[in-house]
Amino acid sequence: MIIPQSESIEKKVNDLLAKMTLEEKVYQLNMMCFGAGKNIAENAGLSGMDIFKKEGAKIASDFEANSVGSIARLPSDLDMQIGVDMINMLQKHAKEKTRLGVPLMVTNAGLHGLAVKGMSCFPQSIAMAATFNPALMEEIANAIGKETHSYGVRQLLTPVLDLGREPRHGRVEETFGEDPYLASRMGVAFIRGVQSNGVICTPKHFLANYVGDGGREGVNVTISERELRETHLVPYEAAVKEAGALGIMTAYNAINGVACTANPWLLTDVLRKEWGFQGIVVSDASSVNYVHLRHKHAATKGEAAALCLKAGLDVDLPRVNYYKELIGEVKEGCLSTEVLDESVRRMLRLKFRLGLFENAYGDLKETERIADAPDHRKLALTAARQSIVLLKNNESVLPLNSNLKKIAVIGPNADKLSVGGYSAADVKGNTPLTALKNYLGKEVVVKYAKGCGLVGEDTSGIDEAVKIANESDICVLFMGGAYGVTGGEGSERATLELMGQQELLIEKVTETGKPVVVVLLDGRPVVMNRWIKKVKGVVMAFYPGEEGGNAIAEVLTGKCNPSGKLPITFPMFTGQAPLTYDYRPYGREGGYAELPANDDRYIPQFPFGFGLSYTTFSYSNLKCTPEKSKDGVRVKVKVDVTNTGALGGDEVVQLYLSNNLCRITQPNQRLKGFSRIHLESKETKSVELILEAKDLSFLNEELKPEVGSGSYSVKVGSDCLHGLTETFKLTF
Amino acid sequence: MIIPQSESIEKKVNDLLAKMTLEEKVYQLNMMCFGAGKNIAENAGLSGMDIFKKEGAKIASDFEANSVGSIARLPSDLDMQIGVDMINMLQKHAKEKTRLGVPLMVTNAGLHGLAVKGMSCFPQSIAMAATFNPALMEEIANAIGKETHSYGVRQLLTPVLDLGREPRHGRVEETFGEDPYLASRMGVAFIRGVQSNGVICTPKHFLANYVGDGGREGVNVTISERELRETHLVPYEAAVKEAGALGIMTAYNAINGVACTANPWLLTDVLRKEWGFQGIVVSDASSVNYVHLRHKHAATKGEAAALCLKAGLDVDLPRVNYYKELIGEVKEGCLSTEVLDESVRRMLRLKFRLGLFENAYGDLKETERIADAPDHRKLALTAARQSIVLLKNNESVLPLNSNLKKIAVIGPNADKLSVGGYSAADVKGNTPLTALKNYLGKEVVVKYAKGCGLVGEDTSGIDEAVKIANESDICVLFMGGAYGVTGGEGSERATLELMGQQELLIEKVTETGKPVVVVLLDGRPVVMNRWIKKVKGVVMAFYPGEEGGNAIAEVLTGKCNPSGKLPITFPMFTGQAPLTYDYRPYGREGGYAELPANDDRYIPQFPFGFGLSYTTFSYSNLKCTPEKSKDGVRVKVKVDVTNTGALGGDEVVQLYLSNNLCRITQPNQRLKGFSRIHLESKETKSVELILEAKDLSFLNEELKPEVGSGSYSVKVGSDCLHGLTETFKLTF
Repeated sequence: MIIPQSESIEKKVNDLLAKMTLEEKVYQLNMMCFGAGKNIAENAGLSGMDIFKKEGAKIASDFEANSVGSIARLPSDLDMQIGVDMINMLQKHAKEKTRLGVPLMVTNAGLHGLAVKGMSCFPQSIAMAATFNPALMEEIANAIGKETHSYGVRQLLTPVLDLGREPRHGRVEETFGEDPYLASRMGVAFIRGVQSNGVICTPKHFLANYVGDGGREGVNVTISERELRETHLVPYEAAVKEAGALGIMTAYNAINGVACTANPWLLTDVLRKEWGFQGIVVSDASSVNYVHLRHKHAATKGEAAALCLKAGLDVDLPRVNYYKELIGEVKEGCLSTEVLDESVRRMLRLKFRLGLFENAYGDLKETERIADAPDHRKLALTAARQSIVLLKNNESVLPLNSNLKKIAVIGPNADKLSVGGYSAADVKGNTPLTALKNYLGKEVVVKYAKGCGLVGEDTSGIDEAVKIANESDICVLFMGGAYGVTGGEGSERATLELMGQQELLIEKVTETGKPVVVVLLDGRPVVMNRWIKKVKGVVMAFYPGEEGGNAIAEVLTGKCNPSGKLPITFPMFTGQAPLTYDYRPYGREGGYAELPANDDRYIPQFPFGFGLSYTTFSYSNLKCTPEKSKDGVRVKVKVDVTNTGALGGDEVVQLYLSNNLCRITQPNQRLKGFSRIHLESKETKSVELILEAKDLSFLNEELKPEVGSGSYSVKVGSDCLHGLTETFKLTF
Repeated sequence: MIIPQSESIEKKVNDLLAKMTLEEKVYQLNMMCFGAGKNIAENAGLSGMDIFKKEGAKIASDFEANSVGSIARLPSDLDMQIGVDMINMLQKHAKEKTRLGVPLMVTNAGLHGLAVKGMSCFPQSIAMAATFNPALMEEIANAIGKETHSYGVRQLLTPVLDLGREPRHGRVEETFGEDPYLASRMGVAFIRGVQSNGVICTPKHFLANYVGDGGREGVNVTISERELRETHLVPYEAAVKEAGALGIMTAYNAINGVACTANPWLLTDVLRKEWGFQGIVVSDASSVNYVHLRHKHAATKGEAAALCLKAGLDVDLPRVNYYKELIGEVKEGCLSTEVLDESVRRMLRLKFRLGLFENAYGDLKETERIADAPDHRKLALTAARQSIVLLKNNESVLPLNSNLKKIAVIGPNADKLSVGGYSAADVKGNTPLTALKNYLGKEVVVKYAKGCGLVGEDTSGIDEAVKIANESDICVLFMGGAYGVTGGEGSERATLELMGQQELLIEKVTETGKPVVVVLLDGRPVVMNRWIKKVKGVVMAFYPGEEGGNAIAEVLTGKCNPSGKLPITFPMFTGQAPLTYDYRPYGREGGYAELPANDDRYIPQFPFGFGLSYTTFSYSNLKCTPEKSKDGVRVKVKVDVTNTGALGGDEVVQLYLSNNLCRITQPNQRLKGFSRIHLESKETKSVELILEAKDLSFLNEELKPEVGSGSYSVKVGSDCLHGLTETFKLTF
C-alpha cells in the first residue's frame, strides 16, 4: 500500500519543490497541532467538540498562506464523524485553498489502537510483549493500520522502541520490555502490520531516553557507543532495516552531551548513512525548543532550528514553533537552501509514496464498518489472554475453585477498565468486576468494595473491604496503577511500591485470614516485598486493553490457562533498579540471582521471562548442532517440550545464549529466540530454534559483528533462570 | 624523599635486569601476602601473632629461590614490634638470602592511617572530604607518611579516588564524595603528604568501579569516554600530573567490555602515554583471576596473565597467583621478554628511587616515638571537628542547653568508636558516650541505653531506651552503621534506610515527646524520610576517627561550632539513586531541587555542600572580572562574607560555575573553587577565588578542553543550592 521509491516519484518531488517559495518549504516541515483549544474556549464560551471545530477552522486559516506539512494531536475524546470530517475539511483546504495544493500528513498517537474514540483498544505495549507472540502483534497492528487509514490518519507517532530497562521511568508501559531481541521482534511486527495499510510508523524516542540517572526523563545519557549498539540501537535498526519504518521520532535527552534532536551522528550518520533510512525524522513535542532552552546548544531560536535541521531533523512537532525561524536563517545566510530542500524532499516523497496526492481523505463509512469491529475485539481478547502473567499460585489457589460460593472483590482497579496511556477516551469493555460476575454466574455471591483509591490518604473504605472479606470464602484484590495517576508520561517515580493506601488495604484484608489473590493492573513492575508473602496468588495483568476485564475473569475462573511471561524484571526493592537479566558478569562476584536469596542487591522478585501456568511443562533432549551457513555458521537448537499436567496450555519456549570466551565482556546471557507453542495434556512437541551468525556474534573492537572461536552455552527453558543447558564450541 | 628519575638510576636498573633470570623477573611482579594463616594455624595449633610469625617464615622461604617484588597485607591487629621486626626480617632475607639481594616493596593499606595497631586513625575519607580542607588533608597525610615510613612500609595501597556518586555502593565511605573537583583537591593533598615521606601512594580503583548498574560492585561500566574524562578520570589525572602519584591500582570492573585490569587504553594509552605516569600499576586483589573467570577474556590462566601484562599491568596482587604463569607464556613464545622487562624495570626503578637498596628497614624506635603521638592526635581532633555536619537544628536544640540536667544517650553507636573500613585494630579513643559525659561534667545526669543493634531483629532493648527517655530532658540518639555490618567493601545495598530496628527505636523514643537529636555515624548517605520530621536535630558525623567521640561531644555541647559540609548528596529515597548535584539539565523539565518539594524524583533530603552552623553567614558584593591570563583567560571572583551571628565559626565558601551556551550539554553547575575561612562574630572577610581557563573549559567534540564564547553564571554561597549569582560573558 506504500508505493516504492522510484525515479518518477523523484521527478514529481523535484518538480513540486521547484515551484515552492522559501516559506512554503519551511511550512512543509512544520506540524500544526490541536490542543490549544482552551484559549479559544475561554474567548468564545465554547465547549467540547465545538472547541475542536473552532480550532480546526483556525488551523485551516493559519496554513492557507503557505500550507503546512503535518497535522497532529486529535483529542482522544473525538467523536468519530467529527474527526473524519475535520481531517477531510483540512485536506480539502490544503488541496483547494493553498497555492500548490500539497496534501497534509495527518498524524496521531496510536500506541495500541488509534487514540480517538470508538477505535479498538488493544493491550498496552508492555502487555503485548508479555505474549511473546510477534505474529499476533502483526495481526493486531494490521487491524490498527486499517482503522487508522480509514480515518484519514497516515502517520502514527508510534511504536515506542525505547527499552524498559529502568522501571522507575514513567513510560515503561509503552515499551516492549527490557530485552532488545524481544523488543525488536515486537517492533518489527508492529511496523509491518501498520505500514502494510499505507500508514507510516514513527518509532520513538530515538535514542535511549528511558535509562540512566535514576530513570529520570530526558537526561543526558552518558552511555558508550558500544552499549548503544549492543542494546539500545538494536530495535531501531530492526525497525528500519527489517520493517522499513518510514518515520523516526527523536528523544528529549542528549547522548554524551549532544541533544538527540540536534545529533548528526544519530540522525544522519547512523540512521541514514549506515542504515539507509528513507523516511522523515520528527521531533518530540517541542524538543527543538529544549535544544535551545534546556540543552543550551544555541543562543537563539533560529540557531536552534538550524542546528536541528542540519543534524537531520526534518519535522518540528512544536508546542512553540521553532522551525518557522528557518525562514530567517536562510534569508540571513546562516542556512543553505540545499539542506532545507533535502528535508522538504523527504516529506514530499513520503506524501507521494503514500498516495496522498491521489486521495488523502478519510472514509467515514469504512471507519464505521471496521472500527472496533467484532474481529478486532476478538484479537484484543486473544492478546489479553496471552498477556496475563501468573506470578504466584500457592496451593493452587487459582483457578478459583468451583465450589466457592462467596467471593469478595476488592480494590481500586476492580470496577474500572484501566487501559494505560495514549488510549482513546471511553473505551468500551467489561471491568474485571463485571466480567468476573458474568463468568461466575448467579450461584456465586460476589461482593465488592473499593477499599481505597490508587493514591491518596483516604482509608475510610478499608473497614467495608475487611467486612466483605470476612463474609467471603476468598478475596480477589484488584490493585496497581493507572496512567496519569501512578505512572505514564511524566510520572517517573522513586518508589515502585503500590501507592496510596493499597498496601494497608492488602495488610488489613490478609489479616482476616481469608485466602487472598492480588491482581495487578499496572504499566510497570510493582515492588511487593512487604506483602507478597501474605497472599496466596498474584496475577500481573498490565493494562490489558478493551477485553482485559473478560480475559482476567477467564484466567481467574480457569476458562483460560495463563501463558504470559514477564518482558521485564520485577525487582524486590526499588533500590535495585536498574536490574536487568542480561547484565554483564560482575568482575568480582554476585549477579542477578547468583547470590543467596537473602541478598537484597541482585535477587529479583520475579525474573525476566517468568510466568506460571495451570499446567506444568518439562524440557528434554536439548541438542545444539553447529553447521555451515551462508553467513559462515549457524547453530540448530532442538528441544522436546512436554505438557506434564492435566490441562492444555501454551508455553513460551525461551532460548538464552551465553558466550564463554570473549575479548569483550559479554552479557551473562541474552535471549536469542523464543517460540509460543500449545500443548494438550501429556502432549510433547519438538521445537527447533536457529541461532544465526548474527545471533552468535559480538561487537568487536571496531564495533563490527564477529563470531568468536570458543565455547558457548545455550539455555532453553521457561524463563531466564530455569532451563536445560548445553555447551558447544565454535572453532574457526 | 623520593629520588628523581635519572640516567644513573636507569643504568642501575638495566645492569640489575641484565643479571636476572626469567623466574627472578616474573617474581618481581608478584606480591606475597599475609593472611593465609588459618591453614598454618590449623596445622600447627598456633594462634594470634604466632601464626603471623610462622607465615612470615614461610613467605621468606618461599621467595628464597627467586626473591619477590612485593609483600602485602599485614594484619590490622599486628603488634608494633612484631610488625617492624617482621618487615626487617623479610628485607634482610631478601638482601642476604636471595641471589641478587633485591629489596622488597612492602605495601599496606593506609586509607586514613597505616592500618596496623598503634598507628593514628584519622577520620575516614568521606569525613575528610566534608572538611573541604585540602591543607589539613596534606598535614594528615604527612603524618600518615611519617608513621608508615618509620614502620618500613613503602607503598600505601591508597587513596580511593573513585567518586562517591552511587550511595548504594559499599565503599562510599572510602571516597572523597561525589564531586570530581573536591576529590581531586583532597586526593592531590593526600598523595603529596604521603609521598613527601618516601612512601608511594597507589590511587585506586582505576576506573569507575563504584557507579552504574544500581551501585553494584565491579560491574561492566558502559560509560562513554566523554563522561569518563569529564568526571571519573579527573581525580586520577590530578593525582598523576599534579601530585606525581607513583602507583595505580586497577579496578575489578570492565569499561565498555574490557576489564580494567586488562585494559590497554586505560593503563597504557591514557595513564602512561597521555599523562606520563612513571610508576607501577598494581591489580586489585585477584583481579587478574577475574579477567579469566568473570570477564572471560582468556581461556587459560597464562593467557589472562599475559593479556594483563601487555595491557600495562605491572604487579599481580593475588589471592590466586596468576603472574607466575608468565614464565610459561614466555617459554612458549606467547609473550615477548621485552614486555616483561619493561614492567620489571618499572618496579626496580621505583625501588632505586625509594632508596630501598640503601635502607629498606623499618625503625622501631622512631615508630614508637611518632606513632599516634600527641601532635597526630591533635590533627585527628582538628579534622574530626571540621568534618562533622550539622544537618538539622530546629529551635536551636543544639548546642545542648547548659540548663539541661538529665540527658538520655541512646543507640547502638553511642558507646563504641566507629572508625570505618581499612582501619587498624583497637583504635584508642573515647566513645561518644564517654566523651559526652566528660564534657558535660558531673552536674548533668547522663543515662545510657543501647536500645537495639545496628542490624537484626532484636527489639528487647527498646523499652529500656523509652524508659530513660521519659526520665530525661532530652534524648541524643547515636545511630547509623559500621564497617562490615551495614556497609563497607562488599556491602552494596538496595536500601539506604537505617538498618535493623533503628527506625523503630527512633519512633518509640520520639513518641515520648522528649526532644530528640540523632547523631549518625555512618559511611554513606542515610535515607531518613520516615523519621526526620519527628526529630529536632540531626548531626552527620561519618566515621570520625580516633578523636571522633571527643569532637562529637564538642559539637553537641557547643565547644566546637560545626562547619562540615556534605561532600555527597543525601537522597530522600533510595530509589532516587544515583542523584548528584552536577546533573546535566534534563532535556524536558525537572532536575535536582528544581521541582516542587513534593516531587520524589529529584529533591534531595540534603544537597551537596550543605551544612549548618551555630552562627549565620551572609554573602554580599559578588563580582566576576574576566581578564587575560597565560592560558588565554581567567575570571577573578570576589565576594564578601560576614558572620552575622553571635558566635565565631568557620564557613566553607563554595563557587559553582554554569555554562549557559555550549555545543555539548554541560552540567547544570559544577564546583570550581572553595575556601574554608574563620569569621568571628560580626566579622567580614573578602574572599577571592580564581577561575582559570581549565576551570572555564568544556571538552569539545575531540574531547579537548576549549573555552567557549558565551554566557557563564557563577554562584557563590554556602551550598550548591544557595548563594549569590552573577553572570558574565566571554567573547573570543
